[in-house]
Amino acid sequence: MLDKKLDELDQLLKRSRAYGHAISMIHWDMETEAPEKALERASEVLGVLSEAAFENFVNPKTKELLDYLNENFDKLDEIRQKSLVKLTKEYNKEVKIPKELISEYESLKAKAQAVWSKAKESGKFEDFAPYLEKLVDFNLKFIDLRGYEGHPYNTLLDDYEPGMTVEKLDEFFDYLREHLVPVIKVGLEKSKNINDDFLNESYDINKQKELSKFVAEYMNFDFSKGLLKESVHPFTLNFGKNDVRITTHYYENNITSAIFSTLHEGGHGLYEQNIADNITDTPLGEGSSMGIHESQSRIYENVFGRSYELWKGLYPKLQELFPRFNEVSLENFHKGINKASASFIRVEADELTYSLHVMIRYEIEKLIFNKEVDVKDLPKIWNEKIKEYLGLDVPNNSLGILQDVHWSCGLFGYFPSYALGNAYASQIEVQMRKDMDLDKALLDGDFNSINKYLTDKIHKYGSSLKPNELMEKLTGEDLNPKYFVDYLKNKYNFN
Amino acid sequence: MLDKKLDELDQLLKRSRAYGHAISMIHWDMETEAPEKALERASEVLGVLSEAAFENFVNPKTKELLDYLNENFDKLDEIRQKSLVKLTKEYNKEVKIPKELISEYESLKAKAQAVWSKAKESGKFEDFAPYLEKLVDFNLKFIDLRGYEGHPYNTLLDDYEPGMTVEKLDEFFDYLREHLVPVIKVGLEKSKNINDDFLNESYDINKQKELSKFVAEYMNFDFSKGLLKESVHPFTLNFGKNDVRITTHYYENNITSAIFSTLHEGGHGLYEQNIADNITDTPLGEGSSMGIHESQSRIYENVFGRSYELWKGLYPKLQELFPRFNEVSLENFHKGINKASASFIRVEADELTYSLHVMIRYEIEKLIFNKEVDVKDLPKIWNEKIKEYLGLDVPNNSLGILQDVHWSCGLFGYFPSYALGNAYASQIEVQMRKDMDLDKALLDGDFNSINKYLTDKIHKYGSSLKPNELMEKLTGEDLNPKYFVDYLKNKYNFN
Repeated sequence: MLDKKLDELDQLLKRSRAYGHAISMIHWDMETEAPEKALERASEVLGVLSEAAFENFVNPKTKELLDYLNENFDKLDEIRQKSLVKLTKEYNKEVKIPKELISEYESLKAKAQAVWSKAKESGKFEDFAPYLEKLVDFNLKFIDLRGYEGHPYNTLLDDYEPGMTVEKLDEFFDYLREHLVPVIKVGLEKSKNINDDFLNESYDINKQKELSKFVAEYMNFDFSKGLLKESVHPFTLNFGKNDVRITTHYYENNITSAIFSTLHEGGHGLYEQNIADNITDTPLGEGSSMGIHESQSRIYENVFGRSYELWKGLYPKLQELFPRFNEVSLENFHKGINKASASFIRVEADELTYSLHVMIRYEIEKLIFNKEVDVKDLPKIWNEKIKEYLGLDVPNNSLGILQDVHWSCGLFGYFPSYALGNAYASQIEVQMRKDMDLDKALLDGDFNSINKYLTDKIHKYGSSLKPNELMEKLTGEDLNPKYFVDYLKNKYNFN
Repeated sequence: MLDKKLDELDQLLKRSRAYGHAISMIHWDMETEAPEKALERASEVLGVLSEAAFENFVNPKTKELLDYLNENFDKLDEIRQKSLVKLTKEYNKEVKIPKELISEYESLKAKAQAVWSKAKESGKFEDFAPYLEKLVDFNLKFIDLRGYEGHPYNTLLDDYEPGMTVEKLDEFFDYLREHLVPVIKVGLEKSKNINDDFLNESYDINKQKELSKFVAEYMNFDFSKGLLKESVHPFTLNFGKNDVRITTHYYENNITSAIFSTLHEGGHGLYEQNIADNITDTPLGEGSSMGIHESQSRIYENVFGRSYELWKGLYPKLQELFPRFNEVSLENFHKGINKASASFIRVEADELTYSLHVMIRYEIEKLIFNKEVDVKDLPKIWNEKIKEYLGLDVPNNSLGILQDVHWSCGLFGYFPSYALGNAYASQIEVQMRKDMDLDKALLDGDFNSINKYLTDKIHKYGSSLKPNELMEKLTGEDLNPKYFVDYLKNKYNFN
């Protein structure tokens, strides 16, 4: 009987995978190549498929199945047990949302993304505002239906960082605010005289593509089970561990953007490619949390990607493709790619100021979900906060509130993951340096060793370990922002 | 009540569209970019989605719905009536095949394609033969289950060319055999001294891509509702009329392959893009038949695409991208792209000999489905026929019976569409020249007028007119191979 039920569960998961696969594939297509007028049809299709996916999972038969398995919990192996806990949580979350609402929400998101994309170009927040309002309303409704403890925003946070709360995040960001602001002042001052103009000359896009491909290969991103493509906003998307896709974006006058996006998304991609075979097709076959996921993207992008040691090996390739860099010493290049300066765009921000951008999104989302703010006032609030934390006057909404795609995709509660990711990354780096000679591996371009370490300690577990379990197992303590502040203090002391 | 039932029908069709969309999107992805190891997961997903699509359509509720609507046929408008006829036919076809048989057949095809692909490389027909035998057996079973009138092969022909029969096709091919063979002799002789070596020098792939994009734009393929990409075998795939995708393939040493594939798939693409708005989301929102579809690809590829008039306007772009062509006169280029020579591979054959390749496939398929031949004897039969019609000795099966993917995909009865397409195209051209100044339009690159004509006469109707209805409405007569033979006679008289 138990075997029969487990079989039923596997069939259910197989169907879930298929619907999820189809939905993701259509999103992938829309982000990377679909023609403009394809949108309407794609939205309709996403609506139907989401409904089918919902009906497949949320129904009395699933409830009965989960109940039966939960009653026989002790007879299951560990992977089954953890999968069941996760699935039951997911079921209890989804069963509370009426299916019509989901399908409406999916079509709204599809449209909102297109509208956002145009509004980002024109800078007209008022075009996107009605969609954003509706997206927020949907999420407020979801929170009501799902319930919440403490702050309503907690319900959304938990979707991306299991167990995360406003209380914990306030503490985290308070620490950063307190300790980072003086470091930032010093760092920005020290960076002032660094010349990085050579990064913003004109660089052939086709050669940049070749370089990004080379970088992805250099870090051992596996192209037999993945690919690298272009999109407006770089992202990673995967279908199990054997089909992991990353994107980057090329700017003629900015040679670093594509490189660091490739390293960043490559980090996400390696995480997915290296999840253990025996859990990839279970509910545990994904990252532990978005924060841990971001730790992997940020560790490749920043800790490894902006290190002198990595570029010692990579620089000759850059010089080969762009002879201009024969006139730039590796030392000056290294300083250039680490130069800090207050800037408008989060994804292009340096490590020093990056977390402040995230902090602002966090503060704004908290206001939104506490109903303390009108959507139409968001540009003003954004601009005021950028002025307060970074001393900058935002010239238009494209460089301000509209810069990020997340809200148009319904990703509320996601932003904090970025700051958590930085903090986790530094904490992991400290442990890594205790366990292996990281500098030597970077100098040798030995990503076999680097990836093996991270696979053994993080990637392979998927979400079978929660973020705090993973961090405690690896570093002996839960999230601690101290390491990140130390990292920045140390880094921005160079001359 | 009727309104409620029509609503139910629309919901059913919407769900069908969604499953079809998802399945096609995954195929599109697999053909154009999916990484190697993505295949296993994608196959699993396709299995689940195909089953869901089947269950959505073939069930007692659909039967009841169709019965009700058929009882109220007279109350429906014309589009509804024609949609209902098509849908009922489709239902009656699918309901006769047990679901398990479909799913067995699907997995057989998946395996057969992989085996064919390897056999095509090695030339070992005996490796593919057992699979081909099973595929044939399945189709014989399908024919039995579905029933047939006249020749068993008729049931398969009707899937691609509604109303087509062995009787009609015999007549058609008999005419071609009788009248084409002497034309081919003269044509091949006249082509002998034409030099087309300049087409096979080394041509930069990125520039070829620019050229194909230019050609697609030149013919007014609408990129706001379509795109052009690369795949091993060029094809067209669409999601309604607002998302139509074509592919081509680039060879460094063959500059014409990508151009003519772009023109060919562009023709298919324009057909789909120009189906009328009010039928695109109905069962009528697709081409009238595969033969008519091929007529549109072939008319753009050959009638327009190999004309002197078209290249008068297009040649300067070619010369700009590839200065080599400054040394080749337009006249010699035009002769070069129309040079005929007997060859082994259908897809690379010139217009003159192409239909003979198709005729051989037709003759063989007829034998197969009349059970007059053993699968193991097919290579011998193929080789004898190529010798008979083209005077060539086939050196190996890769250049012979194994060259085409169709059978491994279960596409039996499809090949005749290619020859029908050529014949329809010539017949349409003759009418077009009566109705408009085609040469002037080609000289002016005036694809507005050309596309408008074909839209008004063919494209907009989708499959609301059957092939014979379409041809009779436009040209006053049903399919007549005379025009095609005249076309070739005329064409291959140039010097």
